[in-house]
Amino acid sequence: MTTIYDAPEDFASAALAGFCAIHGRHVRLVKGGVVRSTEVPKGKVSLVVGGGSGHYPAFAGYVGPGLADAAVAGDVFASPSTAAVARVCRHADQGGGILLGFGNYAGDVLNFGVAAERLQAEGIDVRILPVTDDIASSPVNAAARRRGIAGTVIVFKIAGAAAEAGLPINEVERIARHANDRTVSFGVAYKGCTLPGAATPLFAVPGGKMALGLGIHGEPGIREEDITSASDLAKLLVGTLVSERPAGANRVAALLNGLGSTKYEELFVLWQAIASELKTEGLEAVEPEAGEFVTSLDMQGCSLTLLWLDDELEIYWRAPSDAPVLRKGAVIAVKPATDVLNGAEGQPIYGSASEASKASGACIAKMMQRVSAMLNAAEEQLGRIDAVAGDGDHGQGMSRGSAAAAAAAWAAATAGAGAASILAAAGDGWADRAGGTSGALWGLLLRSWSSSFSDDEAVTTEAVVLGARLALNGVTRLGGANIGDKTLVDALVPFVETLEHRVASGKSLADAWGDAANAATLAADATSSLAPKLGRARPLAERSIGHPDAGAVSLAMCARTAAAFLQGAFGPRGVQI
Amino acid sequence: MTTIYDAPEDFASAALAGFCAIHGRHVRLVKGGVVRSTEVPKGKVSLVVGGGSGHYPAFAGYVGPGLADAAVAGDVFASPSTAAVARVCRHADQGGGILLGFGNYAGDVLNFGVAAERLQAEGIDVRILPVTDDIASSPVNAAARRRGIAGTVIVFKIAGAAAEAGLPINEVERIARHANDRTVSFGVAYKGCTLPGAATPLFAVPGGKMALGLGIHGEPGIREEDITSASDLAKLLVGTLVSERPAGANRVAALLNGLGSTKYEELFVLWQAIASELKTEGLEAVEPEAGEFVTSLDMQGCSLTLLWLDDELEIYWRAPSDAPVLRKGAVIAVKPATDVLNGAEGQPIYGSASEASKASGACIAKMMQRVSAMLNAAEEQLGRIDAVAGDGDHGQGMSRGSAAAAAAAWAAATAGAGAASILAAAGDGWADRAGGTSGALWGLLLRSWSSSFSDDEAVTTEAVVLGARLALNGVTRLGGANIGDKTLVDALVPFVETLEHRVASGKSLADAWGDAANAATLAADATSSLAPKLGRARPLAERSIGHPDAGAVSLAMCARTAAAFLQGAFGPRGVQI
Repeated sequence: MTTIYDAPEDFASAALAGFCAIHGRHVRLVKGGVVRSTEVPKGKVSLVVGGGSGHYPAFAGYVGPGLADAAVAGDVFASPSTAAVARVCRHADQGGGILLGFGNYAGDVLNFGVAAERLQAEGIDVRILPVTDDIASSPVNAAARRRGIAGTVIVFKIAGAAAEAGLPINEVERIARHANDRTVSFGVAYKGCTLPGAATPLFAVPGGKMALGLGIHGEPGIREEDITSASDLAKLLVGTLVSERPAGANRVAALLNGLGSTKYEELFVLWQAIASELKTEGLEAVEPEAGEFVTSLDMQGCSLTLLWLDDELEIYWRAPSDAPVLRKGAVIAVKPATDVLNGAEGQPIYGSASEASKASGACIAKMMQRVSAMLNAAEEQLGRIDAVAGDGDHGQGMSRGSAAAAAAAWAAATAGAGAASILAAAGDGWADRAGGTSGALWGLLLRSWSSSFSDDEAVTTEAVVLGARLALNGVTRLGGANIGDKTLVDALVPFVETLEHRVASGKSLADAWGDAANAATLAADATSSLAPKLGRARPLAERSIGHPDAGAVSLAMCARTAAAFLQGAFGPRGVQI
Repeated sequence: MTTIYDAPEDFASAALAGFCAIHGRHVRLVKGGVVRSTEVPKGKVSLVVGGGSGHYPAFAGYVGPGLADAAVAGDVFASPSTAAVARVCRHADQGGGILLGFGNYAGDVLNFGVAAERLQAEGIDVRILPVTDDIASSPVNAAARRRGIAGTVIVFKIAGAAAEAGLPINEVERIARHANDRTVSFGVAYKGCTLPGAATPLFAVPGGKMALGLGIHGEPGIREEDITSASDLAKLLVGTLVSERPAGANRVAALLNGLGSTKYEELFVLWQAIASELKTEGLEAVEPEAGEFVTSLDMQGCSLTLLWLDDELEIYWRAPSDAPVLRKGAVIAVKPATDVLNGAEGQPIYGSASEASKASGACIAKMMQRVSAMLNAAEEQLGRIDAVAGDGDHGQGMSRGSAAAAAAAWAAATAGAGAASILAAAGDGWADRAGGTSGALWGLLLRSWSSSFSDDEAVTTEAVVLGARLALNGVTRLGGANIGDKTLVDALVPFVETLEHRVASGKSLADAWGDAANAATLAADATSSLAPKLGRARPLAERSIGHPDAGAVSLAMCARTAAAFLQGAFGPRGVQI
């Protein structure tokens, strides 16, 4: 909803003043609208556009070189008055005539139409251009009754480029009308917008539904369907528009418009699907745009606009323009890059390894497989623990990461790597596949641990114990967590200390590891009483008390699985991991 | 909520690919990120930035000349992997060293930190730059633990400009750290965002409340307060930030950031209030920005960032940059306009008028006052009728418009205008003040009517009748409505026809007008059975059936008031209006 305002009735005028304060390089404020703040050649045709407010960047955001000369702004969703249109036109007049562009709505047709008549009576050559791109608003045999939605910005871009090129008013008008005749839009809405000062949205779409054929003034659309995937939405939008494809049209200017709360990433995802549909239709998209060009406050939804290009229209579509939005052309002179991007993976190259080290490495690889199988089975359980005060993705991350680690270790072992390289590869695989904090920590933990091993010798108990300490150091140095912060460090510290202590007092690696795993498990359980101090769970600290830290729990689980492996594979005295 | 996607787990990578397809002039896709698609000088320091997805334009939208060289993109709200960071850096490396910029979050610190160590081991001079602008996330005495929010884009802009200027890595790093030390942000949240595939938002703020100290990964903030006006919000944001103002700082780079669903117009309204607060504090905002720079999917909220400028930082803040967002500098060479914008009102100049015409005009002005008083009293009633299938503003529009018309008529009469000029002035006043469709229609109606009057003669019955027909023609010609479309035309047509018929059959103007007003009233009531065909009420057609059209009702009310005026003021035979 619209939340930030002082007096609702002053919303539109305050927004316009703020816009001019921010974009002073492009515009200056006049009563009821804006004009360019840059010099305009005498005799140039002026493109003056406008309509209600609440649609930013429509219409003030289109003012600048290569686009519009001025914009008139009415109240929110209300046409500007005749007097305001006439006033802004008088400011913008350079003696070359004025093209008045607006969406084809009753109020705008009236106010811009009457203003044009007044100005003509004053001797200014004014032409009107009602944009009619919304194909849902009227059938093709009554296309002149269609309303204007996001296609306005494409038609204005063409008209503005023609005016900037110095063409006379007759030509600018002809090209603009030609562009309008070849511009079609279709869209869907998921959620209505809320006017400043209002408590409820102008319309609601039932849950799970989308409204087809949206309007941009709180109109809900012409019919409802179930919400679809991005791919199916692309099929719907492109399929609907190509039903009006003129003969011979095989290139399009395309504009994917977000209405306000449908965000950039969603538009980019959708664009991928649209690009594929256009290709299937044999249509090439020329300099496509995706973003917010005609909004409806915080409405949720989007529309696709296509302009069926011909050679003439393509020139004006590609021409530079420099307004607060729809900037085309380079600010800093550059050449396209010509280098070819090849892989930059830092491919692992394993040095030679001794048979003893290879044998230890094979054990490590097998252990990683056991750990991975256990984490795969525990994915849901860990997800539930994490969801208490986190985003619930810990189980998935551990499962993905350990699977990648096991695969990387296996690949390294198969390639003849030694123990150090195999464990390092496991760490890198984990970090790369799991991502996020826990993936990085586990990658770091395994890689740090590997630095006490070598590819020349079998892994010794001493190397394992030293490696555990190095792993702890690595995690605390880069991770920044201390004991008591409710992270995996709370389980790792007692694990390492117990392992060191038991081995020093003469226990076998397998027995010492078992004791260490028990210590880690107790410590992980004890994190229930702690409040988190780091990471994204921090603001949810209170909710977390009474529940253990998922990262500490999963570390203890890995320790126990490894203990079982060590004890089962090698017996109570086995050291030759 | 996030609604458009195919597989939720592929959301981030699909969005990145779509972004590259749209912004091919700036970027090209590599695995896990983007690099510039334009030539970069050998030996230039590379600025590589990154973090989780879901924050567009952070971070891929910052890649381009004068800003970043490459961006790494993790999953939604998850750090990219160490391997991805290292891979993108290898692509971006030009031999001059790499500055790695990211927000100060545990996962990013880990992955970017470990990647830097790996790359250093490969011989690349990599420096890390964790941005720490969020003053709500840690007290000033532990500023190094603060997280990065919208300040990242300002710090990256400074670093990118320094790198573009050809400075060596030591200098670029020093300037970037200096910028980070002087950058502070504070924000509020109204509504949480929803992850792709999730059914509920990551957090909720209770109705009427706002959360202070927002995070950009679904963290709700550090405390809640009642939602305030724009002016009070500006006081809160500026007041909080100036508490950390360094000695001697009197110029700031300012950036007002919307989180996703807080829209441009709201930000512009807020900027006006912020600009006023900054001025009160003696701070000058240098090239301020307002828009969406670091989003959190469709989260509702905003933040203010200030960079305390010094001479060195101001140079890099003002330098040109050309990325998908934060473009600074001109695409088309222009000079600032030097003309002074004076009034462009087309001030009314009244010619000479006969005393007889002035007397008729004075009657018209008095009649307008009666109509205005009636519409003022009926404002609520008309609003309720309009709200059934419209936005409920009809009563307000008629009240405002008629008051302006009465004032304009009075002013014209006082200035010595004749009848034609007085009625035309009333029409222009109505249209200018009321705005919207009904304001324009009433302005047109009165102005068209006036064209059968003159300033030289008294108004005759014949002139009144002819004027009524001209008014109807004007309204239907520009308004585009026909009888049966459920507009004021449905009442106006029987009014005009009855007036013509009764006068032709010998009735006095006052009596004929009375009959015409009755006919209009019956016709207005009868619009209840119609469905609207024009205007914004059209999609709500079904809801409207059973209720009369507000515009037809108000027209009939005006006609009745005028009839009473004519009958009361001049008696049954009075013609000398």
